[in-house]
Amino acid sequence: LQDVQIPKSPLVLKALGSFFVGGETEEQTTIELGVGLPGHRTVNQMYVQFMLPNGKNRVPVVLVHGGTLTGKVFETQPDGRMGWAEYFVRKGYPVYLPEQVSRGRSGFNHAIYNNVRAGIVAPNFQPNIIILSGEQAWTHFRFGPLPGVPFADTQFPVEAISQFSKQAIPDLNPSLPVPNPNFQRLSDLALEVKGAVVVGHSESGRYPLEAALVNPEGTKGLIVMEPGNCDGYTDSQVASLAEIPILIVWGDHIDTPGSILAHGPAAFAGCLDFIARIQAEGGNARMLHLPDELGPGNSHMMMTDKNSDQVADLLISWIEENVPPQGKGNPHN
Amino acid sequence: LQDVQIPKSPLVLKALGSFFVGGETEEQTTIELGVGLPGHRTVNQMYVQFMLPNGKNRVPVVLVHGGTLTGKVFETQPDGRMGWAEYFVRKGYPVYLPEQVSRGRSGFNHAIYNNVRAGIVAPNFQPNIIILSGEQAWTHFRFGPLPGVPFADTQFPVEAISQFSKQAIPDLNPSLPVPNPNFQRLSDLALEVKGAVVVGHSESGRYPLEAALVNPEGTKGLIVMEPGNCDGYTDSQVASLAEIPILIVWGDHIDTPGSILAHGPAAFAGCLDFIARIQAEGGNARMLHLPDELGPGNSHMMMTDKNSDQVADLLISWIEENVPPQGKGNPHN
Repeated sequence: LQDVQIPKSPLVLKALGSFFVGGETEEQTTIELGVGLPGHRTVNQMYVQFMLPNGKNRVPVVLVHGGTLTGKVFETQPDGRMGWAEYFVRKGYPVYLPEQVSRGRSGFNHAIYNNVRAGIVAPNFQPNIIILSGEQAWTHFRFGPLPGVPFADTQFPVEAISQFSKQAIPDLNPSLPVPNPNFQRLSDLALEVKGAVVVGHSESGRYPLEAALVNPEGTKGLIVMEPGNCDGYTDSQVASLAEIPILIVWGDHIDTPGSILAHGPAAFAGCLDFIARIQAEGGNARMLHLPDELGPGNSHMMMTDKNSDQVADLLISWIEENVPPQGKGNPHN
Repeated sequence: LQDVQIPKSPLVLKALGSFFVGGETEEQTTIELGVGLPGHRTVNQMYVQFMLPNGKNRVPVVLVHGGTLTGKVFETQPDGRMGWAEYFVRKGYPVYLPEQVSRGRSGFNHAIYNNVRAGIVAPNFQPNIIILSGEQAWTHFRFGPLPGVPFADTQFPVEAISQFSKQAIPDLNPSLPVPNPNFQRLSDLALEVKGAVVVGHSESGRYPLEAALVNPEGTKGLIVMEPGNCDGYTDSQVASLAEIPILIVWGDHIDTPGSILAHGPAAFAGCLDFIARIQAEGGNARMLHLPDELGPGNSHMMMTDKNSDQVADLLISWIEENVPPQGKGNPHN
């Protein structure tokens, strides 16, 4: 059994639980459903876990996981330390952990897989399902220069790599419709809790920006951690985004070879350009390059690194300095 | 946004979080992984959420969800009431919520789906993926005699059916190896927490029995809620199971037509026969038929019904009367 560290003081919560945001009803055949009578099922719903601090009233924080991961990445760490969800709620922030539509407890729309099975749809139309090998994750997430070889200064708890590998589950985002339903869901969630800081990471790194572009009313702060890139926004979109405080976060060892996706020097430079565009519109955006603040060694998985509490503290300081306190009326508060 | 009822008193926990039980490393090709370099990934791990009460030390309770569902079914109810996970922990029980291997946050082994996509495996070898239509669930879960028509006395919160339908996600159990890895995982979990009451439901109804047959050392009590059936155990298996207290639980309206799976009169009668076999071996087993205790109207989803607190109280009374208090040494306590 994994080591789980018991905190020194109990956790006191006003409430905890889960709910769903959105979802559409779709009619499916018995073949598509795989069992029973044909009829309606729900697709594209978003599962959201939440914890509310007792007697505090700070701005809600929405923590969105990256590719192949789930909300689990913000729970107990692979080496048993406290995850960001509990850390933020202990600091007085209502915490919302969505599961991306098509992942984990949000489910996915499996109709096409069963249609392929039945010979109704050709196999090559079946959406790809993805997961990184442990070897690939090692360099891609910048734990070290070669699979199994850590950087001397890495902050990632490499001794717990086997526990971390269990968090990785099949990523069905290639099966999602366009536009990605997660953008609307996150926008709706932020609005329903009467304003939230939305935090994205890696695959979901740009989701806070995209949610704000759907509707900026609920997104009070946008934290963009190592997105694939910051490219492609129109001048009009940049003008909209300049209305909201934006923090972009990057770890160390950006030039590690072996990254199959783009969190490297080109992405970093492109996000600096994006920041300059926001600033030129009078907006409030800046880069938090973790080595500048915490010293060397943070990986792509900064919420899992051994100094994850200090990374969280930097985010919290930024929120306190840049995001107005919570508006009234969060129905969960 | 779903209605969420805020409890009158705060929830005080010694700890909460999640971890994994088991999992095997498997080598997969780039086609199977769907992206990046070939290498190793983890399969058959079981995600487990937990909450530990503050300052209490009762026997841990493991709550296992049924088909197409996840641990979510024990969290906030579709109509916003408190779920069983919080209810049990507020009564002083450490609560463990596993996600069945191949479901939700436990992930699944998608290699064969990508091999079919690539034309390497024939489509008909691709495991079926299942979910019930809302119409099918209505009669199968015995909310009423016809889809959309509730029993006059139903305890299911039918006004929240659209929220309940969002809990249903694709069930990939047909993709699991034999024997079902969930049996070993639950046995290991119960052993690692130094003894637990294991509660199964519907698809997982027999899992407590199966976990005890893998290794009876950790399973201190077995609660079997509306399994498909209780058939097929050998005399030797019955003799083993007779060493552990067993409670079988059934709801009302057992003879509802339209159930595609077997939770009906034949299953109920077969489980009474099983109880008689256990008793003949000197064991402690009994049937808790909910209408006898709580009046009419409980559905197949007794943990979601409007009287779910009262159903939980019946389980808690049974645990207190039949299961020894927790042994020492739960590493999470």
